[in-house]
Amino acid sequence: MKKSIEPRTLKGFRDFLPSEAKKRQYVINALKEVFELYGFEPLETPTLEYEEILAGKYGEEGDKLMYRFKDLGERNVAMRYDQTVPLARVVAQYANLIPMPFKRYQIQPVWRADNPQRGRFREFVQCDVDIVGSDSLLSDAEVIALAVRSLQRLKFGKFKILINNRQIFSELVKKGLTAEKDLPLVLRSIDKLEKIGREDVLEELGKLGIEKERRNLILETLENMLPSEEFTRLFELLKKLGIDSFFYEFNPTLVRGLDYYTGTIFEIQVEGYTAGSVGGGGRYDNLIGMFAGRQIPAVGFAFGFDRLVEAMDELKLFPKDLETTKVLVTVFNEKLLDKSIEVLNVLRNKGVNTEIYDDPAQKMEKQLKYADQKRIPYVIVIGPDEVENNLVTIRDMKTREQKTISVKELPNEFIKN
Amino acid sequence: MKKSIEPRTLKGFRDFLPSEAKKRQYVINALKEVFELYGFEPLETPTLEYEEILAGKYGEEGDKLMYRFKDLGERNVAMRYDQTVPLARVVAQYANLIPMPFKRYQIQPVWRADNPQRGRFREFVQCDVDIVGSDSLLSDAEVIALAVRSLQRLKFGKFKILINNRQIFSELVKKGLTAEKDLPLVLRSIDKLEKIGREDVLEELGKLGIEKERRNLILETLENMLPSEEFTRLFELLKKLGIDSFFYEFNPTLVRGLDYYTGTIFEIQVEGYTAGSVGGGGRYDNLIGMFAGRQIPAVGFAFGFDRLVEAMDELKLFPKDLETTKVLVTVFNEKLLDKSIEVLNVLRNKGVNTEIYDDPAQKMEKQLKYADQKRIPYVIVIGPDEVENNLVTIRDMKTREQKTISVKELPNEFIKN
Repeated sequence: MKKSIEPRTLKGFRDFLPSEAKKRQYVINALKEVFELYGFEPLETPTLEYEEILAGKYGEEGDKLMYRFKDLGERNVAMRYDQTVPLARVVAQYANLIPMPFKRYQIQPVWRADNPQRGRFREFVQCDVDIVGSDSLLSDAEVIALAVRSLQRLKFGKFKILINNRQIFSELVKKGLTAEKDLPLVLRSIDKLEKIGREDVLEELGKLGIEKERRNLILETLENMLPSEEFTRLFELLKKLGIDSFFYEFNPTLVRGLDYYTGTIFEIQVEGYTAGSVGGGGRYDNLIGMFAGRQIPAVGFAFGFDRLVEAMDELKLFPKDLETTKVLVTVFNEKLLDKSIEVLNVLRNKGVNTEIYDDPAQKMEKQLKYADQKRIPYVIVIGPDEVENNLVTIRDMKTREQKTISVKELPNEFIKN
Repeated sequence: MKKSIEPRTLKGFRDFLPSEAKKRQYVINALKEVFELYGFEPLETPTLEYEEILAGKYGEEGDKLMYRFKDLGERNVAMRYDQTVPLARVVAQYANLIPMPFKRYQIQPVWRADNPQRGRFREFVQCDVDIVGSDSLLSDAEVIALAVRSLQRLKFGKFKILINNRQIFSELVKKGLTAEKDLPLVLRSIDKLEKIGREDVLEELGKLGIEKERRNLILETLENMLPSEEFTRLFELLKKLGIDSFFYEFNPTLVRGLDYYTGTIFEIQVEGYTAGSVGGGGRYDNLIGMFAGRQIPAVGFAFGFDRLVEAMDELKLFPKDLETTKVLVTVFNEKLLDKSIEVLNVLRNKGVNTEIYDDPAQKMEKQLKYADQKRIPYVIVIGPDEVENNLVTIRDMKTREQKTISVKELPNEFIKN
């Protein structure tokens, strides 16, 4: 056989070997559990869409970074760039099949030809939760509560949901501190407050032609803003939903990058994880109706799945026993294979994840090494002595301790919890 | 808002609304459970690969149907076409990180620009299980046993694994019934035996220039072939692994389309599902080493995930209570909202999937209709009488029966099993 093509992956694309894939599955399963506890249902949309569905929906940057091409039928197609535009399409396309409010979650990969860097990939998983068709503040509270519960389910201890409302910024216009048309640029600077600091934001505002006094006034006005009546009501609802006020706070300088938010906005920050927010969301009442041709209110949030996994890794929040295989049954030799299979059956029938070493001709040493490499916590050895007395020897691969028990006692050793 | 772009999906691509998405999740979760019970671990590979990794690996058809394009960096890329070639790449790329034998499963979508028809889509999920690096017959037995257990876990009652071995066909050459070089064409005809029948196969063999007597002899030789010693041993192993012989049989005319199999081959047929085999597999010892530049033995199988879901649908194998949300807590009016939230919290804290109707201003009738549309089995109503006496009224949406109980008794009503 000729070795000619180098085995490699594209920049920004990743393989997940079992140890990583297991972590990702753990997070996905935990999140689904909480999402469903809150009454949200799964939705899946295709990887490829007609380009016209996605084009122009994500601003200039989106149009630049989107993966698109002509398919074999000369159709212009594009790969999923986010899960919100497909949601808008689905809501319009199946209007008669979807009861409103539509509470759906969606956990699928998206593709962006961005410059890969720490925590940023060209293929990455998004994890969206939205309530479509409700303008009730209760919905805003429900999605924030769900974000908190999700993080708690994943064992994050210290985190904060920073909450603001886009409406607050209209005060800057009302007070004559900026013109309506300049507001987006002003907000873009304020959005960097945490990243670049107060001084640099003031300087940026200066570059927009805002005189010195007014720059200060803009920041101070926001910083001294008191929670509105709507906030008070939102916080009341959160409290009623059992969410401790330790986990959220009013943050009047929070902007959130995306322009499409119309009301509540929030961002999730995990203490001890500095690579950025692990997620965020808000109310966006003018977006979901884009294909339906009418206004459809919506509120939701998304976790940056890869950041969430990275944060859990750094904070050591993954369970220690994330193994899939609990027991390796070794094979002493070809003659004693039957006994090993018998023990294998006993464990599998009890629901214990068990594998048998595939090659009876291999030495015991090699079989034990295999268990070590795969981090299988228990190994069972059944030699001639064991066979004669209907016993098995169990070796704890961590402590290297061994004990010999009868086959009958075996299932109780590894009852699945 | 202007309604201009028609909300639609590409031919051969599908949305999965919650009721369908739940079924798919159910199947995936059940399969993962069995795969892990058998000691297999998850692997994920990227959607896009360098085109050179995939090109030329799937024959002419594959090169024609593969989705490929130039990315923004002018790299030739291709979308995942199957999960075997990526597995071969992974095995070569991470040789030092992967303990052998490598037992992995992979459940991801693949893309083929095929002509869409019943049960055939351009985006569909494959579900692969393979043991790489073992040439032991025990591995062949393990993957067949796993296929049987998977189908049993999904509640399929009557199905058969047809088993053959590619080696058997060399008998045709040895006996002088066909030349070595003609064997692939002869096998391609025999492969159609079940589809087009005996007469048509004989006619096809005639077109290959094989004289009448020999055509019959070819079929008869295969049909009268007795299981070899290896088969006897394989069937023994299956029996020891607890697999009832009802579920498999020797079938000497089974060919399997793909050329790359080198030993055991098998195909899974479900009684009552006529659209074709729901999966199959076999031993392929010359494929996985293609990037590593050495021979690496392998054996495995794949379920056609969409067919599996379709077969389960047709045979009504999905659990009746596949709902995600179990209870809808209605809101009598804005004043009584707090009580509804209180009940909501009680149920969620007990792990019961519960949602609250988001808009307290809506009439009870509309709230009940919502539960009906979403097939939520239980609705809780808390009116002024209930609030006064700390009671809740539970409505069974199927039987339309109602009962009123105290809030304290509530959790026992919906304990999650």
